[in-house]
Amino acid sequence: MTTYSAPTKDMQFVITELAGFKNMSQLPGFGEATTDLLAVVLEEAGKLAAEVLAPLNQKGDQEGAKIVEGKVIATEGFKGAYQQFIEGGWMSISQSPEYGGQGLPHLLLTATSEMWNASNLAFSLCPLLTTGAIEAIETHADESLKKQYLPKLISGEWAATMNLTEPQAGTDLAAIRTKAVRNGDHYIVSGQKIFITWGDHELTENIAHLVLARLPDAPDGVRGISLFLVPKFLLNSDGSLDRHNDLRAVSLEHKMGIHGSPTCVMSYGDEGGAIGYLVGEENKGLSCMFTMMNHARLGVGTQGVAIADRSYQQAVAYARDRLQGEAPAVKGRAAIIHHADVRRMLMTMRALTEAARAVNYVSSAAMDFALRSETEEQRGYYQARIDLLTPIAKGWCTEVAQEVTSLGVQVHGGMGFIEETGCAQHMRDARITTIYEGTTGIQAMDLVGRKILRDGGQALTMLLSELTMFERELAQAGDDLMMIKHRFNEGREALNQASEWLRAHAMDSPHTPGAIAFDFLMLMGTVIGGWQMARAALISHHALAAGEGDEDFYKAKFAIACFYAQHIMPRAKTYLDGVLAGEATIMGLDADLM
Amino acid sequence: MTTYSAPTKDMQFVITELAGFKNMSQLPGFGEATTDLLAVVLEEAGKLAAEVLAPLNQKGDQEGAKIVEGKVIATEGFKGAYQQFIEGGWMSISQSPEYGGQGLPHLLLTATSEMWNASNLAFSLCPLLTTGAIEAIETHADESLKKQYLPKLISGEWAATMNLTEPQAGTDLAAIRTKAVRNGDHYIVSGQKIFITWGDHELTENIAHLVLARLPDAPDGVRGISLFLVPKFLLNSDGSLDRHNDLRAVSLEHKMGIHGSPTCVMSYGDEGGAIGYLVGEENKGLSCMFTMMNHARLGVGTQGVAIADRSYQQAVAYARDRLQGEAPAVKGRAAIIHHADVRRMLMTMRALTEAARAVNYVSSAAMDFALRSETEEQRGYYQARIDLLTPIAKGWCTEVAQEVTSLGVQVHGGMGFIEETGCAQHMRDARITTIYEGTTGIQAMDLVGRKILRDGGQALTMLLSELTMFERELAQAGDDLMMIKHRFNEGREALNQASEWLRAHAMDSPHTPGAIAFDFLMLMGTVIGGWQMARAALISHHALAAGEGDEDFYKAKFAIACFYAQHIMPRAKTYLDGVLAGEATIMGLDADLM
Repeated sequence: MTTYSAPTKDMQFVITELAGFKNMSQLPGFGEATTDLLAVVLEEAGKLAAEVLAPLNQKGDQEGAKIVEGKVIATEGFKGAYQQFIEGGWMSISQSPEYGGQGLPHLLLTATSEMWNASNLAFSLCPLLTTGAIEAIETHADESLKKQYLPKLISGEWAATMNLTEPQAGTDLAAIRTKAVRNGDHYIVSGQKIFITWGDHELTENIAHLVLARLPDAPDGVRGISLFLVPKFLLNSDGSLDRHNDLRAVSLEHKMGIHGSPTCVMSYGDEGGAIGYLVGEENKGLSCMFTMMNHARLGVGTQGVAIADRSYQQAVAYARDRLQGEAPAVKGRAAIIHHADVRRMLMTMRALTEAARAVNYVSSAAMDFALRSETEEQRGYYQARIDLLTPIAKGWCTEVAQEVTSLGVQVHGGMGFIEETGCAQHMRDARITTIYEGTTGIQAMDLVGRKILRDGGQALTMLLSELTMFERELAQAGDDLMMIKHRFNEGREALNQASEWLRAHAMDSPHTPGAIAFDFLMLMGTVIGGWQMARAALISHHALAAGEGDEDFYKAKFAIACFYAQHIMPRAKTYLDGVLAGEATIMGLDADLM
Repeated sequence: MTTYSAPTKDMQFVITELAGFKNMSQLPGFGEATTDLLAVVLEEAGKLAAEVLAPLNQKGDQEGAKIVEGKVIATEGFKGAYQQFIEGGWMSISQSPEYGGQGLPHLLLTATSEMWNASNLAFSLCPLLTTGAIEAIETHADESLKKQYLPKLISGEWAATMNLTEPQAGTDLAAIRTKAVRNGDHYIVSGQKIFITWGDHELTENIAHLVLARLPDAPDGVRGISLFLVPKFLLNSDGSLDRHNDLRAVSLEHKMGIHGSPTCVMSYGDEGGAIGYLVGEENKGLSCMFTMMNHARLGVGTQGVAIADRSYQQAVAYARDRLQGEAPAVKGRAAIIHHADVRRMLMTMRALTEAARAVNYVSSAAMDFALRSETEEQRGYYQARIDLLTPIAKGWCTEVAQEVTSLGVQVHGGMGFIEETGCAQHMRDARITTIYEGTTGIQAMDLVGRKILRDGGQALTMLLSELTMFERELAQAGDDLMMIKHRFNEGREALNQASEWLRAHAMDSPHTPGAIAFDFLMLMGTVIGGWQMARAALISHHALAAGEGDEDFYKAKFAIACFYAQHIMPRAKTYLDGVLAGEATIMGLDADLM
């Protein structure tokens, strides 16, 4: 069994120093969000993650979930853990006090969510999806649905799911066929959905399924999709549970990872039709879906950070213990952590993980500032920032997770390939994160198309000018920061050049945006990650110069930032090469000849 | 179930045009190696791979091997497939006619081996290890052992294994504890070995275990290791099977992939001692082991190529079938192959796979030329070349396999994560290839330390001057080749610069070689791969200009080479950055602070 220890000190640093937490308690409604509270939250969440969720992670992988007599049964122990989870109030941390939530910043949800996912990714998908559904219901549903469902979802007594995918309709939601027919105050929903995460289980009394479906008279395409809340158990007028709705989990998928998370084929209306309630307006389901999705995308980015950190923790512990051969300046047999190539892998893992965490948390904080800042201008500024960063916080952070978890296996050598060791599970679990809630390719198209080209590059230009200002700050910080400044400059210039190229060439061919999108996203992730690492280096440099705080902590932060600048940031140039190459050789071979 | 179709045309191109097969039939003993024979061999092997081995691949993954009453039972169907495999003479293809082999070039073994591994990697490990053992026995054993074992191993009636690893001794063979005590004409062997691939099975009547062990009076360290042949069944004087030796498979590992290949914990001498026979001289086991290992390293590189190609074939087939959304110039719903980002992934997969195949085959051909060339000078030239290329043909080709098989999953979207689809298995199977027979880090240290620094960089300098000459050839080929020439130049310059840096800085710190080794290996793999792709482009260019051969085939080769030059070759600069950075930031954080 592998252990997990929440990196509370690293989290606190990112939250307070990089993500602007100190300014949050000034914002309306965030008065309670003090640094004292932050410390307590991280410590308590860390305990639950380490002591309750982490010990169930490998068990979930090995035993998985089962269907018994038409009901999905989660891994033994998950239900008890879920009880502890909701009793601790962790489900409601950032939710609206109006419906029983604690109203704390989204940033704190992100940090605690990292802990849940690092300790047990399969388990944590259940609350992740409920959170997305809460967002969609709160933003789009009418008051009566909100009153019936939100308090129970926010407390965690009930869970929720997202039902988008059908066999013929994955990324392409226009192809959805699930039907909904008006029937008085409700709708009759029928159809089959696949890949429904935690589509059924006994962790909660009830499950609110959010289902995309099409009305009989709906226009074709994505403008004819509506969103419905279809509860597992219907409600009596007093809110108590009535009969089982006409829906069921038909089967479970056999997956490469996250075995503890039941992925269901869901059938609605086998016996005449499931009763559902409209969320938002008819045929406006896509925008409701995006509310839910945007939340979930940031959340999946957090999963990337989480599983990368878990993998790093395990690798560094193994590298400290495992004796093999000799190393310079070590007497007798050396632990492999002293071998330079192992150290290179560990430093790569840690630098990428820390950068991804910073990108993810800074994005998450932008969500809080976008909602709560005092002036419209400020809210607009942060909204543009979160829109721009979401595909990176999802796409780049989950690509990082692939590299880090694979290195985690590599550090273990032959033991890495043995399932009992546990690091192979992290790699298998991580593999879904670049796929669900929109593949990396979809994130990249969202970034290039919706987030950059659509606003004429305004949000990106603003970000680039901040990078330029930051570089000036770096330049004034003295010799110790020169290497970082130099590498940062190269990365920033690469991003500048890519943006200019995009502005000039986006219309060269209808394939151009799609062809360069992935490299653009990876370039931007690498540079924004490097920006956050350089900010951390600058803060650490000042703290060390002033002799303030924990010297070892700041020395480590500085050393990791130097490694990132020297070994990760240069990737920006290769991604730039990919952008500048356009679509020519990518589309250079007829599909028939592939 | 996923299918496999051997890429015989691509293989034939690489074998004849890039790996110098046409010159081989001039070499002593290779008179039969004609292009007609080549075509027959590839076609027949392709049939066996597609019709017999490929259909068992997923079954092997799902059912795995079992231990029943102390005996290892392979997946149902494997034994019959193995019979067909040896009846076809595939085990003996490149082996010495003196012991019943067919004496064909090693290059043909490599090509057929690619097919076995692509169709069923877990199955193919069995013959791969036997081949390595044959090499070690033929090179080092005395005549009587050779006569007893080689004919049976070469025919495939018996199999063989490599027993190196012990729990405390992985990469570090100096730590081996398995004991061997002289006892008349044989030795008594006792100890436990782990990670023994195909350590027991019923595919063959007998198994020859090659076991590294230590004599009681042996010097410490790797100079005190000897190699023993320890047969599962002892032999009577007429060569028939006598009693079961004192050895057994104690348990099987649960692995991330290659489930069809039983990975055994082997115990020798539980009941007093297993009888073993010395191979080579006492305390000279390490060099015998390297004979076996060097063969196996090239073979694992071939596995990397194989699994990459399998993954590509599956991804491109899916991308042709799967309809999703709209694409430029496609009516109605478009197959995802028409989306630029999917095409980018497929082109990356194919370009890397083709480059890796060329590197692997060219290395394999160098082995043939090193053994059979007429003059000592020629043999020396090729021996230096194969020594230099082996760590790249293993290390780089298997790293390529990680990237390609992960992209294979990504192309499938959500379906990629579902085990029934089959592409997740390729990724899981591929994951071991950068680990066994020496991790990528070990290959990289071998390259930088043994293969470059030890001879003062001579072999590398010779290769670099060939690259320079080739660039001149490219420069004269006209405008169509200019982009490739430009990118090739960048890559070559990067490798030049890295070599010069290494010459000047290898002794900067004892950590320097280890710190830069991985980037050096990846840089060299990228550039050598690009060299082979550029050679393919040049040949295709000439063929197209002359209107010779299959136009579509050469157009495709040219297009893939252009993609490689534009999208893969630029990685060389990033790897160069890694080399030039030296060990400073890699070792920049105390191990205690990690």
